[in-house]
Amino acid sequence: MRPVSRPVILTGDRTTGPLHLGHYIGSLKSRVELQHTHKQYVLLADTQALTDNADHPDKVRRNVLEVALDYLAVGIDPALSTICLQSALPALAELTMLYLNFVTVARLERNPTIKEEIQARGFGRDIPAGFLCYPAAQAADITAFRATVVPVGEDQTPLIEQTNELVRRLNRQIGRSVLPEARAITPLIGRLPGVDGRAKMSKSQGNALPLSASDDEIAAAVQRMYTDPDHLRASDPGRVEGNVVFTYLDAFDPDREAVAELKAHYQKGGLGDMVLKQRLTIILQATVAPIRERRAALSRDVDTIMDILRTGVQRGREITEQTKDEIVAGLGLFSL
Amino acid sequence: MRPVSRPVILTGDRTTGPLHLGHYIGSLKSRVELQHTHKQYVLLADTQALTDNADHPDKVRRNVLEVALDYLAVGIDPALSTICLQSALPALAELTMLYLNFVTVARLERNPTIKEEIQARGFGRDIPAGFLCYPAAQAADITAFRATVVPVGEDQTPLIEQTNELVRRLNRQIGRSVLPEARAITPLIGRLPGVDGRAKMSKSQGNALPLSASDDEIAAAVQRMYTDPDHLRASDPGRVEGNVVFTYLDAFDPDREAVAELKAHYQKGGLGDMVLKQRLTIILQATVAPIRERRAALSRDVDTIMDILRTGVQRGREITEQTKDEIVAGLGLFSL
Repeated sequence: MRPVSRPVILTGDRTTGPLHLGHYIGSLKSRVELQHTHKQYVLLADTQALTDNADHPDKVRRNVLEVALDYLAVGIDPALSTICLQSALPALAELTMLYLNFVTVARLERNPTIKEEIQARGFGRDIPAGFLCYPAAQAADITAFRATVVPVGEDQTPLIEQTNELVRRLNRQIGRSVLPEARAITPLIGRLPGVDGRAKMSKSQGNALPLSASDDEIAAAVQRMYTDPDHLRASDPGRVEGNVVFTYLDAFDPDREAVAELKAHYQKGGLGDMVLKQRLTIILQATVAPIRERRAALSRDVDTIMDILRTGVQRGREITEQTKDEIVAGLGLFSL
Repeated sequence: MRPVSRPVILTGDRTTGPLHLGHYIGSLKSRVELQHTHKQYVLLADTQALTDNADHPDKVRRNVLEVALDYLAVGIDPALSTICLQSALPALAELTMLYLNFVTVARLERNPTIKEEIQARGFGRDIPAGFLCYPAAQAADITAFRATVVPVGEDQTPLIEQTNELVRRLNRQIGRSVLPEARAITPLIGRLPGVDGRAKMSKSQGNALPLSASDDEIAAAVQRMYTDPDHLRASDPGRVEGNVVFTYLDAFDPDREAVAELKAHYQKGGLGDMVLKQRLTIILQATVAPIRERRAALSRDVDTIMDILRTGVQRGREITEQTKDEIVAGLGLFSL
């Protein structure tokens, strides 16, 4: 019997800050599940982080270990997943350079994700070239690991489209399917709003709960959350839509039935915000506590983390170099 | 006594075709001299060649060996110069990726060399991203070898300017001179016109004499050369300016005095074109014959060429990896 090979996932995070509950619910939690059914590569994307952080390399460096700690603390298991440091895999840079010859500047500029992010970052014409080129770098990442499944947010699907364009272009020129196309999977639970109710939880906006948050920090953040501004008395009927506390309960409360009942009760009237907030506080504290504790324990053992990174890089090098060699041979380029 | 370290030169050629007499007179000849006084790296620029040859990787591959043969045949000595294959040095790709974050798209588009070449190649908006980015790649090449002297054509000096901008930017951020600035040197003898008199000798224009040209090919090419269209009889006074045969004599005839006398005689009248052409034919045949013969002998021993390339790549890796490590450390990036 031949072993059935598992589908390959590539996922990862830019190393620009420690991860938070938004990352946990949006991606980390599912990675912990997916690693049992998929061959999963998790990329510490420090090279990509530099594309808009050239002035802050220290921040990018510092957060390599922070994000690695987050990964291990949530349960990404280096025996099941391969944690790879992007900058330690030269084949990714080499493939990026190669792919940049197969994509026009105009096509990169048309990428909706790039367009939006250029606007969001206020780059205008002063966009760093590395930032414009990052769709090619992402295509290099995805294809180097031969990933067929890439979990992304809704707004990132154009990047997967562009990757597949490059894959088809290369396969056509090579004359056979050297590279597989990739499929974007988007998380079941949409983007978690910040604790202030704004659309996105983000460290830079100060509305994030990090995975190292203490019980008090969690309680205080929940305490400040918006519910229904018209729900002044517990006896009043309340609104569930746009109610940040319910959004969080939907994301974190494992007891779906209980949440459904709470919603009905709240809408009818007679359910106070404090009851909801206490419930959410307990649930978030129970979610974060074991992560925080594992994180604290691991952070005292940097040697182990470094060993895990080294092992991951070694495995990552094997697959990425192999892919690069196949493309070089397929295109008929020179090799020594 | 400490040995005085020699200035470092980086030079090289895109591997898009065998080299010709224009290369010989414009750069190869001086490399053979410079290798005695400088530490010289000669780059087989196959990665750069791909920036506008993505559709023709076979051409780029084939010409790696052709150009290497040309180098050895003209007397570039692997014991004195290091011949490096660009695609075999991953640090160059890694440094390019890094540098792209320190230069804006607008700045790349403003580079006069890039502007002209985009126009010359008819790219318009469909310029491959790799082509737009090549000034950053060239900066990576120059700085990775810590070159301070870069021989270039007049039209290429903006690329050295852009390299030095990046050098200053990185040194400023790092807080010390990790990278040296480079100085462009332009050849004493200007660009050699094609045998048809057009401004540039170029294989693609069919007006080039390759370094493997036979005596007959040389004689035929000289025979077809324009002299002075108004110089109908040997007894007529003739013009020297714009006279392709004299341009070639200026470039190749080692006897400056004799050439000066010929010019005077020609201008006065009484000197026929055939005398000049015979002289030029003999000089070009004498220049090319030993190169052609060494080239033919070497081409029967591909193993030796491959060994030379491997040795060069090994030396090239040492210096380029070391530079990359210093920049990574200087910027405070993560390293395992």
